[in-house]
Amino acid sequence: MLDLIAFDADDTLWHTEHLYSDAQERFGQLLAPYGVTGAIEQKLFATESANLRVFGFGIKSFALSMIETAIALTGGQISGHDIQRVIDLSKGMLSADVQLLEHAEETVARLAQDFPLMIITKGDLLDQESKIERSGLGKHFKHVEIVSDKTPASYAALLARHNLRPAGFLMVGNSLRSDVLPVLAIGGQAVHIPYRLTWAHERVSSEELDGAKYAELENLGQLPDLIGRLKVE
Amino acid sequence: MLDLIAFDADDTLWHTEHLYSDAQERFGQLLAPYGVTGAIEQKLFATESANLRVFGFGIKSFALSMIETAIALTGGQISGHDIQRVIDLSKGMLSADVQLLEHAEETVARLAQDFPLMIITKGDLLDQESKIERSGLGKHFKHVEIVSDKTPASYAALLARHNLRPAGFLMVGNSLRSDVLPVLAIGGQAVHIPYRLTWAHERVSSEELDGAKYAELENLGQLPDLIGRLKVE
Repeated sequence: MLDLIAFDADDTLWHTEHLYSDAQERFGQLLAPYGVTGAIEQKLFATESANLRVFGFGIKSFALSMIETAIALTGGQISGHDIQRVIDLSKGMLSADVQLLEHAEETVARLAQDFPLMIITKGDLLDQESKIERSGLGKHFKHVEIVSDKTPASYAALLARHNLRPAGFLMVGNSLRSDVLPVLAIGGQAVHIPYRLTWAHERVSSEELDGAKYAELENLGQLPDLIGRLKVE
Repeated sequence: MLDLIAFDADDTLWHTEHLYSDAQERFGQLLAPYGVTGAIEQKLFATESANLRVFGFGIKSFALSMIETAIALTGGQISGHDIQRVIDLSKGMLSADVQLLEHAEETVARLAQDFPLMIITKGDLLDQESKIERSGLGKHFKHVEIVSDKTPASYAALLARHNLRPAGFLMVGNSLRSDVLPVLAIGGQAVHIPYRLTWAHERVSSEELDGAKYAELENLGQLPDLIGRLKVE
């Protein structure tokens, strides 16, 4: 029996990854006049990965990593005005309209009638709070948890804080690395709903998936039926 | 009677403001070769204030505002290498040793014997979590709340979430704007322990303080006695 259903937010309830991919495309255009071509995405990803430990997840971290990458790839030649354009890209991302995924609204509203719902999301605190507010979905969620990372330890601590048993906890999200595997590792249940884009950091190898037991759905609209079947079993 | 004692963290439990003032001093030195002198602090503060709505509080936000200020004050002439130095300043701030304030350790340990304790702090999620971990004080706190802002509404929501009555809630902190006035506004109690530096954003006018009833102490070591007297009354 389920005690609570938790949802990831970015690319699970609303579209986010396109903001990053659009920004990266404009970032590439911005570097082109400096003769920088190719390998921009790889260098940016390497910078982001190296900065995660100190900057954490989220758009401000992404902005600082774009700036570092631009400086490195242009040998310091990037102009102040172009760096301002990078900062402006990040401001645009932070104030972009929240676009709900298909079926998000109806699914969340329907499940909220039968279960306490929780959002568990990582990223910048203010950005995530602002998106929850602007999404209009906040009223359906009993709890909102914005966390700095999603690991077995962080899920275990969160469940303990809410007095939740892992077996009664179901996590729904688009990331195998963040929403599925760490929840299974602590004895919880998970539903994977892939998004059309996956950030390299969130990808997992087939070895990591070996033996992992979770449900995979095409879209959020299929979730209530799946949960209905879980309750019957 | 008190049900719970909450503490601000930055410049209440450990020193923080010196990280910002040291960074600002080095930021000024960095701009000097560009012929920029005077009014740097005012321009930086104006940029920070304008960016708060979109970037929120914390060191990553401060870093992005320093970069914007440097670009504006040098008319875009600042070099990529100097912008990298600004980013490196922020990384140094994020990984600086946590220096506890005098009496912090003994006071928190002693009060934890009689009351549930909570940390309520604003800033970057990962940075605040990391400082709590590195401070060694985490074990004394039953709850940690990292919030995007400290307003009457955010305190009211936090108390409701924890089923706390305002009258039984005591907040201890160095900021009249963030730790004292909003808590009094919702019927809670507050103790102000001024720090030797106050960020301009946290300053309040004498009108705002008019009629505000709170205790003011010189240091954390005086807190247990004050609380002892509260219990007797």
